[in-house]
Amino acid sequence: MSKKVVTFGELMLRLAPEGYYRFVQAETFGATYGGGEANVAVSLANYGLDAKFVTKLPKHEIGQAAVNSLRRYGVDTTYITRGGDRVGIYYLEKGASQRPSKVIYDRANSAMCLATKEDFNWDEIFEGAEWFHFTGITPALGDNVAEICLEACRAAKERNITISCDLNYRNKLWSKEKAGEVMGKLCEYVDVCIANEEDAADVFGIKAADTDVTTGTVNHEGYKDVAKQLVERFNFSKVAITLRGSISANDNKWAAMLYNKEDFFFSKNYLMHIVDRVGGGDSFGGGLIYACMNNFDPQQTIEFAVAASCLKHSVEGDFNQVSVDEVMKLSGGDGSGRVQR
Amino acid sequence: MSKKVVTFGELMLRLAPEGYYRFVQAETFGATYGGGEANVAVSLANYGLDAKFVTKLPKHEIGQAAVNSLRRYGVDTTYITRGGDRVGIYYLEKGASQRPSKVIYDRANSAMCLATKEDFNWDEIFEGAEWFHFTGITPALGDNVAEICLEACRAAKERNITISCDLNYRNKLWSKEKAGEVMGKLCEYVDVCIANEEDAADVFGIKAADTDVTTGTVNHEGYKDVAKQLVERFNFSKVAITLRGSISANDNKWAAMLYNKEDFFFSKNYLMHIVDRVGGGDSFGGGLIYACMNNFDPQQTIEFAVAASCLKHSVEGDFNQVSVDEVMKLSGGDGSGRVQR
Amino acid sequence: MSKKVVTFGELMLRLAPEGYYRFVQAETFGATYGGGEANVAVSLANYGLDAKFVTKLPKHEIGQAAVNSLRRYGVDTTYITRGGDRVGIYYLEKGASQRPSKVIYDRANSAMCLATKEDFNWDEIFEGAEWFHFTGITPALGDNVAEICLEACRAAKERNITISCDLNYRNKLWSKEKAGEVMGKLCEYVDVCIANEEDAADVFGIKAADTDVTTGTVNHEGYKDVAKQLVERFNFSKVAITLRGSISANDNKWAAMLYNKEDFFFSKNYLMHIVDRVGGGDSFGGGLIYACMNNFDPQQTIEFAVAASCLKHSVEGDFNQVSVDEVMKLSGGDGSGRVQR
Amino acid sequence: MSKKVVTFGELMLRLAPEGYYRFVQAETFGATYGGGEANVAVSLANYGLDAKFVTKLPKHEIGQAAVNSLRRYGVDTTYITRGGDRVGIYYLEKGASQRPSKVIYDRANSAMCLATKEDFNWDEIFEGAEWFHFTGITPALGDNVAEICLEACRAAKERNITISCDLNYRNKLWSKEKAGEVMGKLCEYVDVCIANEEDAADVFGIKAADTDVTTGTVNHEGYKDVAKQLVERFNFSKVAITLRGSISANDNKWAAMLYNKEDFFFSKNYLMHIVDRVGGGDSFGGGLIYACMNNFDPQQTIEFAVAASCLKHSVEGDFNQVSVDEVMKLSGGDGSGRVQR
Amino acid sequence: MSKKVVTFGELMLRLAPEGYYRFVQAETFGATYGGGEANVAVSLANYGLDAKFVTKLPKHEIGQAAVNSLRRYGVDTTYITRGGDRVGIYYLEKGASQRPSKVIYDRANSAMCLATKEDFNWDEIFEGAEWFHFTGITPALGDNVAEICLEACRAAKERNITISCDLNYRNKLWSKEKAGEVMGKLCEYVDVCIANEEDAADVFGIKAADTDVTTGTVNHEGYKDVAKQLVERFNFSKVAITLRGSISANDNKWAAMLYNKEDFFFSKNYLMHIVDRVGGGDSFGGGLIYACMNNFDPQQTIEFAVAASCLKHSVEGDFNQVSVDEVMKLSGGDGSGRVQR
Amino acid sequence: MSKKVVTFGELMLRLAPEGYYRFVQAETFGATYGGGEANVAVSLANYGLDAKFVTKLPKHEIGQAAVNSLRRYGVDTTYITRGGDRVGIYYLEKGASQRPSKVIYDRANSAMCLATKEDFNWDEIFEGAEWFHFTGITPALGDNVAEICLEACRAAKERNITISCDLNYRNKLWSKEKAGEVMGKLCEYVDVCIANEEDAADVFGIKAADTDVTTGTVNHEGYKDVAKQLVERFNFSKVAITLRGSISANDNKWAAMLYNKEDFFFSKNYLMHIVDRVGGGDSFGGGLIYACMNNFDPQQTIEFAVAASCLKHSVEGDFNQVSVDEVMKLSGGDGSGRVQR
Repeated sequence: MSKKVVTFGELMLRLAPEGYYRFVQAETFGATYGGGEANVAVSLANYGLDAKFVTKLPKHEIGQAAVNSLRRYGVDTTYITRGGDRVGIYYLEKGASQRPSKVIYDRANSAMCLATKEDFNWDEIFEGAEWFHFTGITPALGDNVAEICLEACRAAKERNITISCDLNYRNKLWSKEKAGEVMGKLCEYVDVCIANEEDAADVFGIKAADTDVTTGTVNHEGYKDVAKQLVERFNFSKVAITLRGSISANDNKWAAMLYNKEDFFFSKNYLMHIVDRVGGGDSFGGGLIYACMNNFDPQQTIEFAVAASCLKHSVEGDFNQVSVDEVMKLSGGDGSGRVQR
Repeated sequence: MSKKVVTFGELMLRLAPEGYYRFVQAETFGATYGGGEANVAVSLANYGLDAKFVTKLPKHEIGQAAVNSLRRYGVDTTYITRGGDRVGIYYLEKGASQRPSKVIYDRANSAMCLATKEDFNWDEIFEGAEWFHFTGITPALGDNVAEICLEACRAAKERNITISCDLNYRNKLWSKEKAGEVMGKLCEYVDVCIANEEDAADVFGIKAADTDVTTGTVNHEGYKDVAKQLVERFNFSKVAITLRGSISANDNKWAAMLYNKEDFFFSKNYLMHIVDRVGGGDSFGGGLIYACMNNFDPQQTIEFAVAASCLKHSVEGDFNQVSVDEVMKLSGGDGSGRVQR
Repeated sequence: MSKKVVTFGELMLRLAPEGYYRFVQAETFGATYGGGEANVAVSLANYGLDAKFVTKLPKHEIGQAAVNSLRRYGVDTTYITRGGDRVGIYYLEKGASQRPSKVIYDRANSAMCLATKEDFNWDEIFEGAEWFHFTGITPALGDNVAEICLEACRAAKERNITISCDLNYRNKLWSKEKAGEVMGKLCEYVDVCIANEEDAADVFGIKAADTDVTTGTVNHEGYKDVAKQLVERFNFSKVAITLRGSISANDNKWAAMLYNKEDFFFSKNYLMHIVDRVGGGDSFGGGLIYACMNNFDPQQTIEFAVAASCLKHSVEGDFNQVSVDEVMKLSGGDGSGRVQR
Repeated sequence: MSKKVVTFGELMLRLAPEGYYRFVQAETFGATYGGGEANVAVSLANYGLDAKFVTKLPKHEIGQAAVNSLRRYGVDTTYITRGGDRVGIYYLEKGASQRPSKVIYDRANSAMCLATKEDFNWDEIFEGAEWFHFTGITPALGDNVAEICLEACRAAKERNITISCDLNYRNKLWSKEKAGEVMGKLCEYVDVCIANEEDAADVFGIKAADTDVTTGTVNHEGYKDVAKQLVERFNFSKVAITLRGSISANDNKWAAMLYNKEDFFFSKNYLMHIVDRVGGGDSFGGGLIYACMNNFDPQQTIEFAVAASCLKHSVEGDFNQVSVDEVMKLSGGDGSGRVQR
Repeated sequence: MSKKVVTFGELMLRLAPEGYYRFVQAETFGATYGGGEANVAVSLANYGLDAKFVTKLPKHEIGQAAVNSLRRYGVDTTYITRGGDRVGIYYLEKGASQRPSKVIYDRANSAMCLATKEDFNWDEIFEGAEWFHFTGITPALGDNVAEICLEACRAAKERNITISCDLNYRNKLWSKEKAGEVMGKLCEYVDVCIANEEDAADVFGIKAADTDVTTGTVNHEGYKDVAKQLVERFNFSKVAITLRGSISANDNKWAAMLYNKEDFFFSKNYLMHIVDRVGGGDSFGGGLIYACMNNFDPQQTIEFAVAASCLKHSVEGDFNQVSVDEVMKLSGGDGSGRVQR
Repeated sequence: MSKKVVTFGELMLRLAPEGYYRFVQAETFGATYGGGEANVAVSLANYGLDAKFVTKLPKHEIGQAAVNSLRRYGVDTTYITRGGDRVGIYYLEKGASQRPSKVIYDRANSAMCLATKEDFNWDEIFEGAEWFHFTGITPALGDNVAEICLEACRAAKERNITISCDLNYRNKLWSKEKAGEVMGKLCEYVDVCIANEEDAADVFGIKAADTDVTTGTVNHEGYKDVAKQLVERFNFSKVAITLRGSISANDNKWAAMLYNKEDFFFSKNYLMHIVDRVGGGDSFGGGLIYACMNNFDPQQTIEFAVAASCLKHSVEGDFNQVSVDEVMKLSGGDGSGRVQR
């Protein structure tokens, strides 16, 4: 039997103009589905784990299509509560060169945003699970959802389930103050903390020196201190920080650091031509969880997570459609992109 | 200078799977825009009138794309208030044969639904206008919008602007009781009343005998009485009722009746192969308004309106993309569909 | 818990030019998946049953995509054996008017065609199942597969599982003689026999009088005798025969008859505008099995099965994407195709 | 060796919005190529003849793409003169129901319109040919082209090559008077005359009684007299007249009559659901020429030509993509459209 | 009220194969519209100015679609004269890597090429305008159009409207000699001269030293002298020269220089991944005009114009779909392309 | 008359998801055709030679579509034997950045794999030919095909036809041992040997020092020795070796070396942005053959071949759609990708 992982969050309809068309030019939208925790679940299902995604989605056909998008890739959707009126939406315009990608959210009042405690039976959901994952987006959906999140963390902790959280700060959803307060409570339960180069500063005011994300300058060394402070405050067993250097909308540098309270492990650096940037962080989380659950050593862990997310940047859609073999091949050193016949 | 017409309502993003695909099969959505009153405005702009559409739409790019969809076809968008967060959405699945088309609304909390009186300056808007049109959908959006609608009617009446209203009952938006109450007040101001074969019954409880819309049986004669009762209650100068016989999702019979307090005028009957059914009623309203504003005689009026809407059923999207010449040619008798070289 | 059904057969990649394009004009192929028994499984999963599909598919990505096409719609793919080299293919050109649809098979040597007894553990597969379904296509894939089919029938019989078989004669796969011989053996185990207006004649030489399928003339009464003879020979508890009247590639008449050893039950007749004809028979089988498993009375049973398959003809792809509610609404009499808002 | 046929005319780029979109809605155009005589050449190549198409096309890539569109389907393009600046264009909007298809020509000053006698070496072109075909469109392109046409007719006559001409009147290209004058001269050389239900009246003022093409009423008997008069004036060995009854843009009746100076032969009548109407007449010409070159008897000849063109109406694009077998099957009576597996 | 700008030129239908397909591979063409001066008008409308585009276009639907393409993006099309037969066309094949983009023009005899003085009433057109823009393409369309251009310049000068001209030499339209002669006369009226790194040499024989455009080597300093000579000859108040370094069809370097008779202002240099190269120069013109009309200082002006056109290279189609805010953000320094959520 | 070349091999259907979609995401496949020797034939037809492609393909429509794909681009398909059941298939997933392209073959039992000696009449085929080309893929299809290949070589040799062979090792088709044995025999007849940076090692065990293809490090000098050894063993008149440096799936370095027994000629180095990598080697072969047949000097020869294949990497599909002029322009030094108007 495969190991069980549970992730909890919102699954949104993603509406994106084809190719590099701008919103105002679009006559069709590609209709896929995505969301931080669902993206992680798909990654893990693709790696062969028994990944369960928990959320609330309407009973109508758009809700059903959202559910189907996960079933298609092997995610267990048994614990998705059906009800409510709308599927949250995000519009995505893909950037190019100096023109950034643009996201317009239309997620207020979605079924998940209006979910209640009664919608989820955590005892049933966590039956046999080894790992629980959520991101900072979930509690940001509303006080009710933050409360459910807390309940889930408590239930997971009681069962000795490892909890990971990707800080994932979204300024359209809540203020830094509010985020700091709510996430502060939740992080008490968290074992593995994931963050990008800005999250710790946004949520907890913990900053890396000498870094300006808008110029592509990321001071890798400065993040050692960020990780240390995070561990000091929350006693995380592991902190993983992704380090993106944005050269242009098409070209990014990509690496990450893992801190296991003993040492710092830096991954290889990748220079990526980007096919689809969204879900890049989530694919890192997915890789990290897989590596941890399979007891990779720290260096292997961070290499696996970074290689997984490096590959994600070459895949269309929120979901990372790669196998363990493919990640292993890249983390093992072959990034030449030669045709596989 | 062209004659000025003002229409007022919501413009929604319409998301529709390609061809006959069902929602759960869709990987892309055609992204067009539509809404009862906007559809009428496009009809009238295509006929060469100066058609102004009034609504509220967000400033972001999706709101802009909605505005552009009207500008493209010559509608004056100067009086569209920009603000609010979301563009209302409706998902449309095109039916075929025995399988009906399906609409899922996601329009709650749109910019228009949350509009306030301050958003519209009717004095400015009605400057020089000859006609004002709205449908029963607009007041159904909320008490605030019903109130604005009433204000618009009063302002129009003061300026001696002719007012037309398509009853257009939507059971997802309000109850029959509520509709009857609100529409009852608004209809006091209305000169020209438009309805389909069910609206009068749904909104005002005025029914035609011997009609069952689900079997394709429509008793044309019974609608004479419906029209008479409507005039008796509201003193409309004209009542126009469309008479759809639904054989299947692909094939409909189509005709209409006009009552001008003196006599009843029935149009020709059309048997239509349907390309896109949505907006069919609105294109009838557009044709009717054009004919009235140009003083067509009653028989010509109802023939023009029905021919216009018959052609609409052959056009993709909510908007009726036909010219006066095309409508005239069909109402004049050539429905052979021979190639025009 | 939902009732469990098992279906067994081949799942093929279906490559079809877009719209009405001919093969020689195609620059792209729509890539979907289908096959008689898989189509039935999807129907049943859509009706809420626990439908398991059993087959063999390669481990590579094309095999995986085939598996995913079933998971997406809720079919349990746990018992699909992974191995072999190729996914069977059929090319489909959609006909129009007097031009018939055309199928070119390229299924020889598929993973399923080369499957062995060792690939399937029927004890495990049938655990808790109530119904087993296969069609005449499965044993036609080769003597090895016929043998596996026989083994499955025996295993099902031992567990008192109801067995249904759609005769489904394919002249590209085997001769009438061979079909008669092999199907004769398998039908000994079958409880519910499904056939179209030609199968009984092709496989067992049992013909209806006064019927010529190429002229659209189908003598419904003649099929009473066919059903009787089938029951006499194989002691089926039920025989269901579909009666298609082909007016053109776009328009078909559609009805069916059920014989339960006591009486003959004829369904309503439908005149259908066809969106996609392939899988029409399988959707009938799916409807029939659902109705039987839910103990519908005989008239309800045949009406449900025919309404289900009537709707299928309006759905793109092999799979019937309709719900129990939709089928009930049509079998209850509303085939007007009016927009559902 | 296959029999050689030469056709001479213009090949245009056809730009057509997808599906039933109107011109003003189009964001893409399907780009295919077509023209009366080229369409006939493709029909004949598909039937296995050695069909040569003669025209003038620019050297640039759009001209090359036009050439390639013929090579792809086996037409010999050796005698296409390369030069000039532009490929003629026609924009095509597909009609539906009561809305007719619309053609906008942009063919003036094309390479072919500006061709000179020096561009074609008829001695070389006609080497070994048995049949020469052109339509009334070719001489309508300009006096220069009419002159070349006359030269070609003379050269063909000298070699005893059978000449067929489809009158094909186009009122955008010339007046009825001019057409009558020029075609009158060319028809002196013609053996087989092809016309639709309006051409003889438009070009030579020879009318059928009791026919109104815009109402779908075509008086088949009246065309006997038309054919007789044509033979009296030009001594054609055969006259074939197509008889289209246009019910709507989607549905047409289709039949034809052949007169061989001895007797009148009427084909079966077909009721067609139309996929693409353009090229319908040309596919009739192609079928007729094939039947004549293979010495079919008169009834077989007209049945083959009508069945061929009936099938064309189900094929996208100007070119008729059908085989002799397919035509034979339909003319032999099977128009049921049943799936060919 | 927004400031008014008038631009005058031809609007063409642009037919482009999808993605990187070559002309001979294309089965569809993207159908958009573009032309030097229309592109500038769209830029300015997007920046919030009241941009009027003046041209002549046919009354038919292709002409209407061209008009609509401008209305959609807010350009005032009131002064477009309707008449003539054809919309000019250009075929565009997008290049990649070492393979250059290719343009085939088919614009001769367009409505605009055959326009007459009577088609334009400059008094009415220039009412309230502050700026008039045209490019060297307009007078190259024919002596008649050059004459109209001259008339427009005189009318503008009389009203003290600022005139800008982009030299934009097209060798397919006229010789260098002819261009020099005609542009020489027109430039007498011009205040702001725009040119790319080759135009001054092609039109007026004024060359920059040490520059070879085919090797990507552009000697920025050499253009100081070009600008000086231009001012000496025509007394322009400003000269702006774009400096493109073409590394490959995908990658270009981009910068520009502004000379205001006092000093030379060089912009930042951008390295661009190109989405669509066509219209790049026009978007520079649009940015420059906007900056001038809003009295940006010289350095800000050239930075705005270059940032605007840098962004254009990331936008599909001729039109630059960017806002003032987006240009400001880039010219202010953030070219990292980080996702905007 | 153009010079005649014959190539011999398999033509496969290539099924590729659109853009960068992965196999498991694909809902459509682009359907084109390709194969090593057919690709060379198209290159040569595009250069104006009389290129004949010899293979075996089924009579059905998929076989016909394969034939048409060659006719379209001017390849002579007269000697393609029609018969057998299936067209070989390869599925292609385009890689991006660190994610490699992936090929899944489904070519076993194709018509060509099962061809017999009787299917080809080499006397007739080689009539008037000057050059014969095949690749190592053809004999790898089976012993029967290897035998036919040998027969073809003998027949060509007798007629003094120059023979070229691209070693093209495919490990999915045969072992290195088997390849070495069979190719060893065939190479006795070969005059011009073409290989990539790995083939000589895979097939004949002849390795270049200091080269690791997975890291992008290719030691150009080391290939001098490889070429020398090849000539020593087989007495080739020429050996050409392509030298690909794979930086990522998007970016490759590209160059080649020619050895004519006297001297070594290295081409320029190109850095390519890749549009479509497949067929890159074949386009080199096509360029080389063209240059040899037109007696280019050795340096020109290798420059032409490399420039041709460099351009191919910017063209979608297996076939190289470029003209002699375009190759000459690039080999002459203009790789700036500036728009050609």
